[in-house]
Amino acid sequence: MLPGRCVVELLYDVVSPYSYVGFEIMTRCSREWSNMDLKLRPVLAGGIFKGLGIDHTKFVNTKFSPTSESRARYNQMEIKRFATHYDVPFNHPADFKSYQRRGSLRAQRLVKAVQIDHPERLEDISRSLSQRVFINDLDIYEDDSLLQACTKIGFSQLESSNLLKRISDEDVKTSLKSSTEKAVKEGVFGVPTYFLIDRTGEKEMFFGSDRIFMIAHRLGENWMPNTR
Amino acid sequence: MLPGRCVVELLYDVVSPYSYVGFEIMTRCSREWSNMDLKLRPVLAGGIFKGLGIDHTKFVNTKFSPTSESRARYNQMEIKRFATHYDVPFNHPADFKSYQRRGSLRAQRLVKAVQIDHPERLEDISRSLSQRVFINDLDIYEDDSLLQACTKIGFSQLESSNLLKRISDEDVKTSLKSSTEKAVKEGVFGVPTYFLIDRTGEKEMFFGSDRIFMIAHRLGENWMPNTR
Repeated sequence: MLPGRCVVELLYDVVSPYSYVGFEIMTRCSREWSNMDLKLRPVLAGGIFKGLGIDHTKFVNTKFSPTSESRARYNQMEIKRFATHYDVPFNHPADFKSYQRRGSLRAQRLVKAVQIDHPERLEDISRSLSQRVFINDLDIYEDDSLLQACTKIGFSQLESSNLLKRISDEDVKTSLKSSTEKAVKEGVFGVPTYFLIDRTGEKEMFFGSDRIFMIAHRLGENWMPNTR
Repeated sequence: MLPGRCVVELLYDVVSPYSYVGFEIMTRCSREWSNMDLKLRPVLAGGIFKGLGIDHTKFVNTKFSPTSESRARYNQMEIKRFATHYDVPFNHPADFKSYQRRGSLRAQRLVKAVQIDHPERLEDISRSLSQRVFINDLDIYEDDSLLQACTKIGFSQLESSNLLKRISDEDVKTSLKSSTEKAVKEGVFGVPTYFLIDRTGEKEMFFGSDRIFMIAHRLGENWMPNTR
C-alpha cells in the first residue's frame, strides 16, 4: 500500500465505450476514496493512434487482424455486461461506426474549452457527452448537439454558445493537441489509461476500465464500489 | 446469484501466458468455492485462430495492427504485475517468440493423453508444462522436455515414456482436434475462456484471466482469493 495521498490521472475520450465506463467507475471511486485526488485529462483517442502511426480509420472501415466474428459478437455483449456489473447505464448505439467515422475531435475540443473556462464543470460536460452516445444514442458532432450537451448540465444559452465558439480557438485546439501528444510520449496507446502518482512523484500506468481494482489495492481502498 | 451447483469449463493452452495465470487463479478458486465444479478443457490456441481464419504466424513474425511499441512494452509489464497481484509465480521467458514458433501442439497432445489415460493428473500435467515455460524458461517441445514434465509430477519413467508415445496416437490427436473445433463452434476466439454453466444447462461465456471476478459474483463466492 502506498503511503500518503496519491493522484490518479484519468486519460479519456468521451466517444470510447470502455473509456466511458472507466470514467464512471473512477469518478465514483474518487468520491468514495479518501486517499486520492482524481485529475481528469481529456485526450483525443484518434490522435493517440495517429501519434503511434496506426491508421485508426481501419478500425472503422475494415476488419483488423487478429479478430473474428466471434470476438466482435463477444465484445458487443461484454461491454454491456461489464457496465451492468458496475451499475453504469449503457446502451449500444444503433450505428456506433457512424460515431467513429465522425470522430470525437469537436466533442473533445468542447471538453477542453470547458476545462479551460469552467474547470469545475469538466466532469459534468464529459459525462453529458458520453451519455448522449451511450445512453441516448445522440450525435456529438453537430453544433446543436454540442449546445444541447452544454445546456443539459445547466450552462445558459449564452455560455453554451460561447463554449461552442471556443472550440475553434487556437488555445483550445492546441491544448487538446498537446495533451494528446504528451500522452503518446508517456507511453499511452489507448483509453482509458490511468496514471497512479504517489507522493514522491513515482508514476504507474494502468490501461483499461478493468484495472481499477489494482489502483484500489495500491491505495488500500475498498473494492468494488457499488456493484449490483 | 445463480441457484444450485454450477460447472465452470476452463478452456486453456499451456503456452499462453494469460491462460496460465487464469488457470492458476481458477484452480485455486475451485478449491475454495463450494458451489462450483471445475472442468478443464485443454484446446490448441493455434487451432482456434486457424479455425477462425486468422493467420496466427502473424503474431510471431510481424506486427499486427493496431499495436505499437508502447503497447508491447506495457503488455510485457502488465502480465507480470497481474500475475504478482494474484500471487502466481511468473517470469518472462527470455525468448517467448521461440515458444510461439514451436507452438504447443505436442505439449497439448501430451495434456490430452494424460486427460484420457490419467484424468486425475490433468491439472498437474498442465501446471507442470506451463511452469516450465513461465517459471523456468524450459522447452516444452522436445521429447526429453515432455518426459521431464511427466516425471516432475511423479509419473514413473515407464508411464512417462508411454504418455510420450501416446501423443502420436490417433485417438489423442483426434481428441485435441475435436475439442478445439468444438470450442470454435461455441464462439471461442482465444484462451483462457470460461463457460459458466448453471444447473439448467444455461451457458455464459467469459474471456480472459481478468473476468473471473464476474464468475465469482454470479456464484455468490468471495473475491478475490489469496491476493497479496
